[in-house]
Amino acid sequence: MAHSVHSERSIHEMLKDTPPMNESTSAIHSGTEPKPFKAPNSLPLRNVSAPATPMSPTSPTQNGNGNGSDSNLLRSSASKIDTIKNWSISTYKCTRQLMLEKLGKSQRTVDSELEAQIEQLRETQRKYLSILRLTRALSSHFHHVVVTQHALAEAFSDLAQKSPELQEEFTYNSETQRNLTKNGELLLSALNFFTSSVNTLCNKTIDDTLITIRQYETARIEYDAYRMDLENSRPEPPNSPISEDLQTNFARHKEQYEKLRADVAVKMQFLDENRIKVMHKQLVLLHNAVAAYFSGNATALEGTLKQFNIKLKSPNSVTGSWLEQ
Amino acid sequence: MAHSVHSERSIHEMLKDTPPMNESTSAIHSGTEPKPFKAPNSLPLRNVSAPATPMSPTSPTQNGNGNGSDSNLLRSSASKIDTIKNWSISTYKCTRQLMLEKLGKSQRTVDSELEAQIEQLRETQRKYLSILRLTRALSSHFHHVVVTQHALAEAFSDLAQKSPELQEEFTYNSETQRNLTKNGELLLSALNFFTSSVNTLCNKTIDDTLITIRQYETARIEYDAYRMDLENSRPEPPNSPISEDLQTNFARHKEQYEKLRADVAVKMQFLDENRIKVMHKQLVLLHNAVAAYFSGNATALEGTLKQFNIKLKSPNSVTGSWLEQ
Repeated sequence: MAHSVHSERSIHEMLKDTPPMNESTSAIHSGTEPKPFKAPNSLPLRNVSAPATPMSPTSPTQNGNGNGSDSNLLRSSASKIDTIKNWSISTYKCTRQLMLEKLGKSQRTVDSELEAQIEQLRETQRKYLSILRLTRALSSHFHHVVVTQHALAEAFSDLAQKSPELQEEFTYNSETQRNLTKNGELLLSALNFFTSSVNTLCNKTIDDTLITIRQYETARIEYDAYRMDLENSRPEPPNSPISEDLQTNFARHKEQYEKLRADVAVKMQFLDENRIKVMHKQLVLLHNAVAAYFSGNATALEGTLKQFNIKLKSPNSVTGSWLEQ
Repeated sequence: MAHSVHSERSIHEMLKDTPPMNESTSAIHSGTEPKPFKAPNSLPLRNVSAPATPMSPTSPTQNGNGNGSDSNLLRSSASKIDTIKNWSISTYKCTRQLMLEKLGKSQRTVDSELEAQIEQLRETQRKYLSILRLTRALSSHFHHVVVTQHALAEAFSDLAQKSPELQEEFTYNSETQRNLTKNGELLLSALNFFTSSVNTLCNKTIDDTLITIRQYETARIEYDAYRMDLENSRPEPPNSPISEDLQTNFARHKEQYEKLRADVAVKMQFLDENRIKVMHKQLVLLHNAVAAYFSGNATALEGTLKQFNIKLKSPNSVTGSWLEQ
């Protein structure tokens, strides 16, 4: 029984193998941290290979030492079979629970407020990803504009030298394009800072909470499955071993469900505060940089970049990137 | 002899079958006139099928009525042979002249001033075509920027309605992008007016003069070929029929050459005046529109477009083009 508990809990442990909340919320501005371990998107209940993972500690020994057929291997095989058995029962219960819910034949535990918040978070992520896609496109198109303006400044400057009859006209066009190129590079830096930060928010910070949410949703199904088991066993005498087993399972899954529900609530609150802080900063930056650039206010544009600690590429590297075009 | 003169002149007539100068210079801003007949780029002297063209009036009759073998056909065949003979002699003379010039064994008539002007014109066309290519690219990239800004304004506006916590930030970003979109359409109109006018200048007005220049260059070779013939026949008595024939040919080609040289000089002068006028106007427009847009001066931008009589697309058609994206 103890072993069974261990092997069943290990499925949850596997699910929980993600970075702790504090780490990911504080890491939002780094942009260079290694990608955290990502849990599978589908429900782990349906993952046929799941039982193999918790048993793996014995496998390397087996592969390394050849055909060692000692008692360790026998015990390992026995516990493997146990794990598969327990995992199959759990998967069966949860799949049945999902089907019964879909057919309307089983009551599901509902936390309306939390579920509305979760739906809201997913909607927010979708909308922010759309903003991210558009600002990335803007940045790319604007980069091409800047590169073309640079080439145009050169072409006008060349014609100014060789056309005395239109020297003045070519010269001021060349100077205008050259200035726009310089300020365009500053705006590009601001746009790239915006997209980088919104990318971290959408694809790292929000995703981390969504992983906990998926674990919570799985725990809810398991909890409801064992709750239904218990409710359907009412004719059993309360002190029979079967009834005790059902009680234990139910209590364990209830605890698991409530722990994850609390986790999700806390993470969502922290995420919301973090999201508002990040988006406020980024939206102010985007607006100030765009407004400064498109009103020809180079000083304000440079001030905005300094205010947000955006490092600029060195003038040489900028020229380098143009020469490569 | 009279027939021979006719068939030889017809090669020049064929070359001269281009619109008159006045028509093309006045047509610079229309942008809708049908493409003028274009003379072949290579020297017509090397065009083996050339004799067939002046003789063509008899060909349709022949093809239409089957095998009509009347005296007309006989006369036609005789004159065809004559034409081929004369064309072959002319081609031979001119090809020999070109080869002798290349080997440095024959003096070519040189008008240094005119040739320098011609080289300058070709260089100017190359440089303006490069400006045209770059402003077209700028217009295309900028169009994509405007379309993206429009979508971004919509996305920010949507988020402003659904995020009370960041309503202000989303709202002013949405308004900024929307304003830029509106003014961006005005700048695009100015850019498209610039490219359309420079395109007409490069690919119609300048090209028309270059056609006359190619005719002039051909006439110069013919003139030099007949001049060399005459110079090489000095031992002949001055009043012999051969000498008279050479004199007539020489005089005719000299006249032709001088006429085309004068044509080229006049056309180049008109073209230069026209080119400076057009480019001055377009460069002022481009600078004023770009400067107004990138300093956020919508009133100045609208004023510039009105000053240059640039018609704007109706607001509906603008929206239409965005919806198509």
